[in-house]
Amino acid sequence: MADIIIKNGYVLTMDPELGDLKNGVVVIDDGSIVEVAESTEATADTVIDARGGVVMPGFVNTHTHAGMTLFRGYADDLPLASWLQDHIWPAEAELTASDVVAGTNLACLEMIKSGTVAFADMYFFMEEVGTVVESSGLRAALSYGMIELGDAEKGKNELKKGKGFVNEWNGKADGRISAMYGPHAPNTCSKEFLIKVKEQAVADNAKIHIHVLETEAELNQMKEQYGMCSVNMLDSIDFLGPDVLAAHCVWLSDGDMDILANNNVNISHNPVSNMKLASGVAPVTKLLDRGANVCLGTDGCASNNNLDMFDEMKTATLLQKVDTMDPTALPARKVLEMATVSGANALDIKSGMLRKGYNADVIIVDMNRSHLTPLFDVPSQLVYSAGGSDVRTSIVNGKLLMDDHKVLCMDEQKIIDDAKEAASDLVARVDAKN
Amino acid sequence: MADIIIKNGYVLTMDPELGDLKNGVVVIDDGSIVEVAESTEATADTVIDARGGVVMPGFVNTHTHAGMTLFRGYADDLPLASWLQDHIWPAEAELTASDVVAGTNLACLEMIKSGTVAFADMYFFMEEVGTVVESSGLRAALSYGMIELGDAEKGKNELKKGKGFVNEWNGKADGRISAMYGPHAPNTCSKEFLIKVKEQAVADNAKIHIHVLETEAELNQMKEQYGMCSVNMLDSIDFLGPDVLAAHCVWLSDGDMDILANNNVNISHNPVSNMKLASGVAPVTKLLDRGANVCLGTDGCASNNNLDMFDEMKTATLLQKVDTMDPTALPARKVLEMATVSGANALDIKSGMLRKGYNADVIIVDMNRSHLTPLFDVPSQLVYSAGGSDVRTSIVNGKLLMDDHKVLCMDEQKIIDDAKEAASDLVARVDAKN
Ligand SMILES: [Zn+2]
Ligand SMILES: [Zn+2]
Repeated sequence: MADIIIKNGYVLTMDPELGDLKNGVVVIDDGSIVEVAESTEATADTVIDARGGVVMPGFVNTHTHAGMTLFRGYADDLPLASWLQDHIWPAEAELTASDVVAGTNLACLEMIKSGTVAFADMYFFMEEVGTVVESSGLRAALSYGMIELGDAEKGKNELKKGKGFVNEWNGKADGRISAMYGPHAPNTCSKEFLIKVKEQAVADNAKIHIHVLETEAELNQMKEQYGMCSVNMLDSIDFLGPDVLAAHCVWLSDGDMDILANNNVNISHNPVSNMKLASGVAPVTKLLDRGANVCLGTDGCASNNNLDMFDEMKTATLLQKVDTMDPTALPARKVLEMATVSGANALDIKSGMLRKGYNADVIIVDMNRSHLTPLFDVPSQLVYSAGGSDVRTSIVNGKLLMDDHKVLCMDEQKIIDDAKEAASDLVARVDAKN
Repeated sequence: MADIIIKNGYVLTMDPELGDLKNGVVVIDDGSIVEVAESTEATADTVIDARGGVVMPGFVNTHTHAGMTLFRGYADDLPLASWLQDHIWPAEAELTASDVVAGTNLACLEMIKSGTVAFADMYFFMEEVGTVVESSGLRAALSYGMIELGDAEKGKNELKKGKGFVNEWNGKADGRISAMYGPHAPNTCSKEFLIKVKEQAVADNAKIHIHVLETEAELNQMKEQYGMCSVNMLDSIDFLGPDVLAAHCVWLSDGDMDILANNNVNISHNPVSNMKLASGVAPVTKLLDRGANVCLGTDGCASNNNLDMFDEMKTATLLQKVDTMDPTALPARKVLEMATVSGANALDIKSGMLRKGYNADVIIVDMNRSHLTPLFDVPSQLVYSAGGSDVRTSIVNGKLLMDDHKVLCMDEQKIIDDAKEAASDLVARVDAKN
């Protein structure tokens, strides 16, 4: 007897070998997918009727700062320097562990409701984040964001905190949680520090999450400081490899793209954030042409302002199309692949595909809706017409987190109320100081 | 006794004189708003509790082809010529009146569900469209799309059809429907034809809906044919004025922008469509700097692929920000104004604002949702975080069309089923011919 059978749905496996099943079944047992087929002889404790829905791998959000949901809408439409220095940093300086718990709970709730099954996070109070993720049921690759600013003493402490988190959390929650090292960026961490981080990560068999060339300011700063850009500097210290998840990668030269692709660096593209902060347009189609693993991320809620991977998929393809002036750029199925398969590759998890032996990280999208009618092409509909609220069921690691839009693993109203309270207390503290 | 009182909500009036009411009431009687205030002595047949919601003017979608919902996802990610010539045109050639009824019903349902209260449509079988709009309860400015291609005989027939529609439908459905002339574009209608259209429109006191400079191809074609661009040509025949609704306006020179602004032409910006078809980026901030009335449109569902004005708002501001590399470009409240006030101005309807004496075209957006928490700034939240499915109540002309997400004015499932059937029959006919 299996745990769950999902039947009667259109099964978008994202598995190039199996292809789509117009009417198929997915059988789940003990956290894994045990069968994907046209029909099955299996029986299960729970049978889910996915009629009128699309059964697919859940999304992998490869770059966010979950706790920043508390800053959603707190400071928008501002010049970048003022946004950071006058608003986000002062507010982050006041963040407590319980604020990050409230914000991360809210983020997990929002991700479950909109079809994300796994995410890569970089933030503070990561032990608390780990505890929240563990109880949420989601899968995550967590990293403590280390900012060293060329201060060797600070660097020592940051690396110690990063290592403490990695050693305690890597592989926790039945393997749902992995821990990464999170050096913030090449212009907020010195070369010497990054060398140490890389050594430690290799020694601990942990991966690395880092921002790379999000802004032109970083590019200019790096050129001034090192006489070379971030990618070249990272390459010069043998930092780059398949163990690196590089967020943004907007300001790349052709040579940088070659280096990233040749080193199998995972690139998290964050188009909504890049547009909202006017960072620029990442050369996604060129990176894909070079065979790079490009995945998608929402970034934090101060620069998006939601965690909806449908939004991110649509924006990703629209932006590439208009930027390259080519309406065939980044077709729907390719964007879906970035949001699932490529994201799972980046986090090195067996998710992102419905295939026997893979993690049972599965969602069902309700297609019986006016804005999803008629249905000619499932990938097109998902990318160009659907939204997070069309997700009706979410399963992670074989456990039902949401069924028929009802979240089963947490108290939705309590999380919303707690987040409201934490945010308003936080802002009151910030206002009192400033 | 009034018809409806909406109370306990955050009232985003969009009225610069009144401003926002953090907890206010909106009183509706006989199709109009009769009071907007902190509180009221009035009583009403229906009292709506908007607690946890934002009460605001519904959206005005100023450019779409409603019947094209039938082509949603039918042909995506294709080169423009193939998209049009191999897919959209052959399918449109097979469209029957009943197909357009099915598609327009679907569009009306989708618009009601996502908070649109009025729209400007240009398509075929407009009598049928008028009948659908009349029964849907929505408000619309409808135009028969005239394509003359320099053929005087065809032009005569097209103008006759356009005039017949205007004369029969302008002011119908208790004034909810206005009828416009719809010459398709300056490169699909000759100068001589456009002169006649303008004369007829002035004589009939009707407005004009036209595509202008959507693509670089149009610009090149116009320069070759007339030695000037579309805006200059239209200006040379005194076509431009506040009675003109010009869709797209992507390929404008600075001089064109001056002309459009000085002539008070209404400009419908369609960013999702412009990105998806790789048409280019309209110079919206420059147009606004010149005082032009720029509003928003989704365009048809073959190039979007939905009618969600929240999507359009977010995309509009993101695109301007990254295109001008200025994160302060097109702030949230300005985009909201484009989607409401400016749209209503373009269609010359007293909607788009909650003010005494204005049409009771009001929506309530549910903010008690994880992705809309916490709530620091209502316009930011609506533009950057919300989506069409967050709309819980829709009132048009004082009539409740949707309450608590339940559509009251039409049979939702029947409309979805009819549209599916019409679309699949249509494609079968197209396939049989090709
Ligand atoms: Zn980031
Ligand atoms: Zn159009």
